[in-house]
Amino acid sequence: MATEKRVTAAALVIGNEILSGRTVDANLSYLGRRLNELGIQMREARVVADDEGAIVEAVNTLRSNYDYLFTTGGIGPTHDDISSACIAKAFGVSLVRHPDAERAIAEFTQANGRELTEARLKMADVADGASLIVNEVSAAPGFRIENVFVMAGIPKIMQAMFEAVADDLVGGAVMSSRTVTTFIPEGVLAPTLTTLQNEYADMDVGSYPFFEDGKPGVNVVLRGPEEAKLDEAVATLGERLDALGEDATRG
Amino acid sequence: MATEKRVTAAALVIGNEILSGRTVDANLSYLGRRLNELGIQMREARVVADDEGAIVEAVNTLRSNYDYLFTTGGIGPTHDDISSACIAKAFGVSLVRHPDAERAIAEFTQANGRELTEARLKMADVADGASLIVNEVSAAPGFRIENVFVMAGIPKIMQAMFEAVADDLVGGAVMSSRTVTTFIPEGVLAPTLTTLQNEYADMDVGSYPFFEDGKPGVNVVLRGPEEAKLDEAVATLGERLDALGEDATRG
Repeated sequence: MATEKRVTAAALVIGNEILSGRTVDANLSYLGRRLNELGIQMREARVVADDEGAIVEAVNTLRSNYDYLFTTGGIGPTHDDISSACIAKAFGVSLVRHPDAERAIAEFTQANGRELTEARLKMADVADGASLIVNEVSAAPGFRIENVFVMAGIPKIMQAMFEAVADDLVGGAVMSSRTVTTFIPEGVLAPTLTTLQNEYADMDVGSYPFFEDGKPGVNVVLRGPEEAKLDEAVATLGERLDALGEDATRG
Repeated sequence: MATEKRVTAAALVIGNEILSGRTVDANLSYLGRRLNELGIQMREARVVADDEGAIVEAVNTLRSNYDYLFTTGGIGPTHDDISSACIAKAFGVSLVRHPDAERAIAEFTQANGRELTEARLKMADVADGASLIVNEVSAAPGFRIENVFVMAGIPKIMQAMFEAVADDLVGGAVMSSRTVTTFIPEGVLAPTLTTLQNEYADMDVGSYPFFEDGKPGVNVVLRGPEEAKLDEAVATLGERLDALGEDATRG
């Protein structure tokens, strides 16, 4: 039994290009994995269009349902970048130009011999009361307001922003995992896994089938807060797979 | 202006492994792209855990908000495959064993020299009143109930199931697109794109920045139902990019 509080998060991916299939999202899996390492469980993710009503509603639902909300996308300089304004609206506050953000953008454009356009300055607009999230890649910052972290969509920048705030996140029990790979098909394996799940109720037993060279296999993933218990469950499962007598490989 | 009705869809990805970052979802982009080709716009996607309450709520919200809902994942034979039962619950109907599904699974297991286990038969359970979605890969079918299509999570199987029902979907105006790639940075390009969006209000002008060899570029994507108008907008944009006088490449 985990003694620490469970800490949860949600992700909100903002952008028409993800929904049209033009761009394949690369941020959800990064966030899920990194949050997990920090003892925070991502419990839900949503993808919405560049649409004010949809963004505002998703932000307000997710920030109240989970401990943290991370948004990606829509904070650039163009007309379709409406996330910052929508976050301000969701919180019922003004969109204000942040002097530190303005300075960071001005310095970066000057250092790169570029022009400080109004479009670039738009990236200094944040929800009133927000604190900035440093962007070490291209200067224009993200921001945090209460439990909501507003980040860029480009994976390289999103990752830099996430790592800039990772130390500020308060996690709970860190979930460790073990993966057992077997070529015993799920349809034969199922009762064994049901029994294991019932025996280890505080552990999450997941069954993820795959095809390898046309041959069906299963990754059994055990997740839980206690290393010793995971090792014990892996050993138990291994014995039972051997007893099933098929070509199981484990790793 | 599109003369045909706009047809919308949502996707619901079900599975802990996506949220933990262990598995990278490959289904959303496939669905978004294929639906788009059929004149159906994916307007929202959600990822939820293998959790009854979360699945039921998401199914009921999404099926009422959009013309179609496509779910992926959680219809296999193991204890963590709870999607079919949750869909039945969302519709307030029983989970029933479908005789045609049972037969398909029995034939497939026999043909492959496998045992017809109770776990395998569980995959014949569908929401009462549903029609089956053929699975040409591994027999165990998906199902359709009203506007909800319940499909497998393994991409190869999900794609086969989607293609099995694609002809039954009624789309609206098909959105075509043109992509213009430029190395004029977004911060300079922004006013040009705002003007273009205002001039072509029935077209969606998207700006998608990227890094290539450390150099920032932008894919400008124009989407709309009329080919001729898209070509006209591309030509107009091209002239304006040339006038901006930087190294724009277009394709």
